[in-house]
Amino acid sequence: MKIVRLEDCRKRPVEMEGVKGAFKQVPLGKADGAPTFSVRVFTVEPGGHTPQHAHPFEHVNYVLEGSGELVSKDGAKTIREGDFVLVDPDEPHQYKNHSDVPLVFMCIVPRHYE
Amino acid sequence: MKIVRLEDCRKRPVEMEGVKGAFKQVPLGKADGAPTFSVRVFTVEPGGHTPQHAHPFEHVNYVLEGSGELVSKDGAKTIREGDFVLVDPDEPHQYKNHSDVPLVFMCIVPRHYE
Repeated sequence: MKIVRLEDCRKRPVEMEGVKGAFKQVPLGKADGAPTFSVRVFTVEPGGHTPQHAHPFEHVNYVLEGSGELVSKDGAKTIREGDFVLVDPDEPHQYKNHSDVPLVFMCIVPRHYE
Repeated sequence: MKIVRLEDCRKRPVEMEGVKGAFKQVPLGKADGAPTFSVRVFTVEPGGHTPQHAHPFEHVNYVLEGSGELVSKDGAKTIREGDFVLVDPDEPHQYKNHSDVPLVFMCIVPRHYE
């Protein structure tokens, strides 16, 4: 059994084309022996965004703090603290933060895609 | 893409031997087309507990509200709001709430075990 606090997880900038002001932490993942899926946490700073992209695996999100926009084939939807979100495999998506406080969300994926 | 609020999810009592005052919701799971894992949320009332049991799949928890005890082979550990927890496959475990407010936690499992 392993218990982890987010503040103890190393925070690294996300370095991909199309990213602005986004940081990644991995509270529970491969390194912890997670067998099926990994829990990552992304922080998107005010004015920041993740890349618009798609991949052959799903995202399951839980919004820990703040609010933002999730842009997908369904258009732009507001996401906010306490929302659970399923982004389907191969669905193009992008998280944007137009607010003035950080958007912090869990993003759980199959462990191979950690 | 699907966005779900916990308060909109049906809440059912957990009816298993060894359970007291525990309720289950499934914000994202099989019914939503979740491909790999399901997100359940358990509420354990003050004085309540889940059964002491083990199973061949892991639990990944995130504590949403309150605090409690997670009893495993490592003894009893305190869990509290904001903790991420990995319970390994086949590890005996039990969640207890000795506090005077509800313990609410996400419990993510491979979808076959939803």
